[in-house]
Amino acid sequence: MEFFKGMSQDAVKDLYEVVSQEMEKYQAMKLELNMARGKPCKEQIDLSDGLIDGSIDFAIKSDYRNYGILDGIDELKTVFAEVLGVEKDEMIIGGNSSLNLMYDTLVRGMMFGMADSERPWNKEDKVKFLCPVPGYDRHFSICQALGIEMINIEMDDNGPDMDQVEALVSKDPLIKGIWCVPKYSNPTGITYSDEVVQRLARLETAAKDFTIMWDNAYLVHDLYESGEQLMDIFAESKKYGLEDRIIMFTSTSKITFPGAGVGMLASSKRNADRFREQMGFQTIGHNKVNQLMHARFLPSAQAIKSHMDKHAEIIAPKFVLVDKMLEEELGQYGIATWTKPKGGYFISLDLPKGCAKEVVNMCLATGVTLTGAGATYPYKIDPNDSNIRIAPTFPPIEELEMAIKILCASIKVVVAGKALGRTYQAGA
Amino acid sequence: MEFFKGMSQDAVKDLYEVVSQEMEKYQAMKLELNMARGKPCKEQIDLSDGLIDGSIDFAIKSDYRNYGILDGIDELKTVFAEVLGVEKDEMIIGGNSSLNLMYDTLVRGMMFGMADSERPWNKEDKVKFLCPVPGYDRHFSICQALGIEMINIEMDDNGPDMDQVEALVSKDPLIKGIWCVPKYSNPTGITYSDEVVQRLARLETAAKDFTIMWDNAYLVHDLYESGEQLMDIFAESKKYGLEDRIIMFTSTSKITFPGAGVGMLASSKRNADRFREQMGFQTIGHNKVNQLMHARFLPSAQAIKSHMDKHAEIIAPKFVLVDKMLEEELGQYGIATWTKPKGGYFISLDLPKGCAKEVVNMCLATGVTLTGAGATYPYKIDPNDSNIRIAPTFPPIEELEMAIKILCASIKVVVAGKALGRTYQAGA
Repeated sequence: MEFFKGMSQDAVKDLYEVVSQEMEKYQAMKLELNMARGKPCKEQIDLSDGLIDGSIDFAIKSDYRNYGILDGIDELKTVFAEVLGVEKDEMIIGGNSSLNLMYDTLVRGMMFGMADSERPWNKEDKVKFLCPVPGYDRHFSICQALGIEMINIEMDDNGPDMDQVEALVSKDPLIKGIWCVPKYSNPTGITYSDEVVQRLARLETAAKDFTIMWDNAYLVHDLYESGEQLMDIFAESKKYGLEDRIIMFTSTSKITFPGAGVGMLASSKRNADRFREQMGFQTIGHNKVNQLMHARFLPSAQAIKSHMDKHAEIIAPKFVLVDKMLEEELGQYGIATWTKPKGGYFISLDLPKGCAKEVVNMCLATGVTLTGAGATYPYKIDPNDSNIRIAPTFPPIEELEMAIKILCASIKVVVAGKALGRTYQAGA
Repeated sequence: MEFFKGMSQDAVKDLYEVVSQEMEKYQAMKLELNMARGKPCKEQIDLSDGLIDGSIDFAIKSDYRNYGILDGIDELKTVFAEVLGVEKDEMIIGGNSSLNLMYDTLVRGMMFGMADSERPWNKEDKVKFLCPVPGYDRHFSICQALGIEMINIEMDDNGPDMDQVEALVSKDPLIKGIWCVPKYSNPTGITYSDEVVQRLARLETAAKDFTIMWDNAYLVHDLYESGEQLMDIFAESKKYGLEDRIIMFTSTSKITFPGAGVGMLASSKRNADRFREQMGFQTIGHNKVNQLMHARFLPSAQAIKSHMDKHAEIIAPKFVLVDKMLEEELGQYGIATWTKPKGGYFISLDLPKGCAKEVVNMCLATGVTLTGAGATYPYKIDPNDSNIRIAPTFPPIEELEMAIKILCASIKVVVAGKALGRTYQAGA
């Protein structure tokens, strides 16, 4: 037997029967639990209600209510330049979405090219991007929407497989970039090692206009006091004069309000100047009232740290619970491995080959919506059909507990069923 | 003599000398007055400080603080669907800038094509747009940034010259659209006549994917009780099954906060669905907290009307003052004509050929910044060099008075100088 180490065929059969009955009980409960996305929960969002306290004297800041200031207000740049480790003129503050800044950046690449492009990317025969997997589905959707071909790169605990990356980019000038979530990666939760960051920073690429999309979404999102340190790729790249390659993104979406935060971009002064010029055709400026609210609510890097500690207090117990339950329910059977992140929003769960879709569908039929199987891969194709992304932050803890119970039961039924050559059918 | 009707050469010479001395006096004042853009003034912006009064109970609207709701919240759609005369599912609420929605719309045209395009516009040999002139400089900049060729269309008091429009679009399939500011047009202040709207609504075009960019920026921006009525082009176009052509834009930029308002788009359900799908790659949703603030502050079309009356109270006297001063200072000489808008943000001033640039430069040298001459034309080329856009709303009334005095003096010096074959030089 492949998975149920040390268990007899009969024992597996017994397990299958017991858990099948458990599943029927769950199905009768007509639950509606949603763990599909990495959304902060209500208690987390409440932490930032002070943003809109009505006490801000906008009268003295009339310029901020009026038109103008294309790339963001100085007060907020000051705070986040420190957090990001960049100069203020290397930053652009956007609207409420860093995803939108990423999309617009690649659209500009397609339409106008990057600073060192020989031509707009849409004038190339083809444009390709490296996609460390599993990764963030919305990165991959952007590529798909823009017709950018995606190439899977394996991830391990140190980040993307740099041997693979180096071999590919050194010879193919149509590989124009790579997506990275370098800290508390979505979904594996790992932080890129110093060696990976260094190798990315000095990458020798056939393309002159290679672009590292550095989505630092979780840069201050530690779950525990001992957070992980990410090496500064921007400083590293400057050593080699390669800083034009690095485009960093972050946002306050998971600091303040997910739907009403502030997105930002940082890159070399050369790139930032170029983007400012291009943005000038698109908008007169983003919402500076919201920017000022943020600057008042989060006046320093230290204030952000204290605020994020409160988030951790709310969500760390959820990560601990999921880990504990997975261990208790699945640990003994050797049928799953999962990550134990020190920050970020996800736990990445790997099942035996060919089981992920069936498990996700079974959960769905039982009222638990998970991120779609395959979503963490380009074109939604997980070649092993084995990865499931768990997003524990949003549900209340008792709902989370129920959802993970159902997930574990589904996994047991599906994997045992496969081992026994059976397919579980509800009510059968 | 061409301009100074009934005046002797000596009288013009006297005028020139007197006004030249006046200009020297102004120059010695080292003024810094800015009328370059159509910005609301501080008193107007103060009208909307209630937006951020801290009393909104966001706790019961937790979804609006969190991720989601791609195309805007229902409360605000309800209000503006009434104002725009569309169904809610024909609307998309965006971020703080309708300009950004327009830019993104044309970028999508270039990259993906419109609903009825045979191919993305950037796969055509060339894409052309009709540009009624004088018009809004930022519309023209978008075309220029995207490599869309612009064709000037003459405007009169009824709107664009429809004979010209019909002749061009009927035979050239590469003419993919037209820019329109149909009510209180920027900068002429005219409202399109019913006949113009009707002819636009049923236009026979060689292009299947012809697009009318209907920038209804000033739809509720009457200066006086007797505002002008704009015919509903959307309803008209539906009579002919041509509603996919119409893409309407508006925003609260000149209703609430210019830099922190809400932009929106409305079109056929078919287009709106298509845009929603395309937007889904770009963002998870725009700032819904700001949308809710707006829905609470402007809960109905009637509330908007009352609010706009307060704006009119502040800015109508500025328009009256400018008109009165132009009449007093220039009327007798027959050297200028200007519009008398009943709404919007601009007065359009026409000078004798070849005078606009010189007047704008002279004003600038005297501390008065006007919109650049030529800015109201594609490629910033006013073929007659005669149009100047006056934006009276932003300066306090005493500064406005000084600025218009200087503008009028500059006009007299420049036009008299031309009549006399002289060029005025400061301090000479």
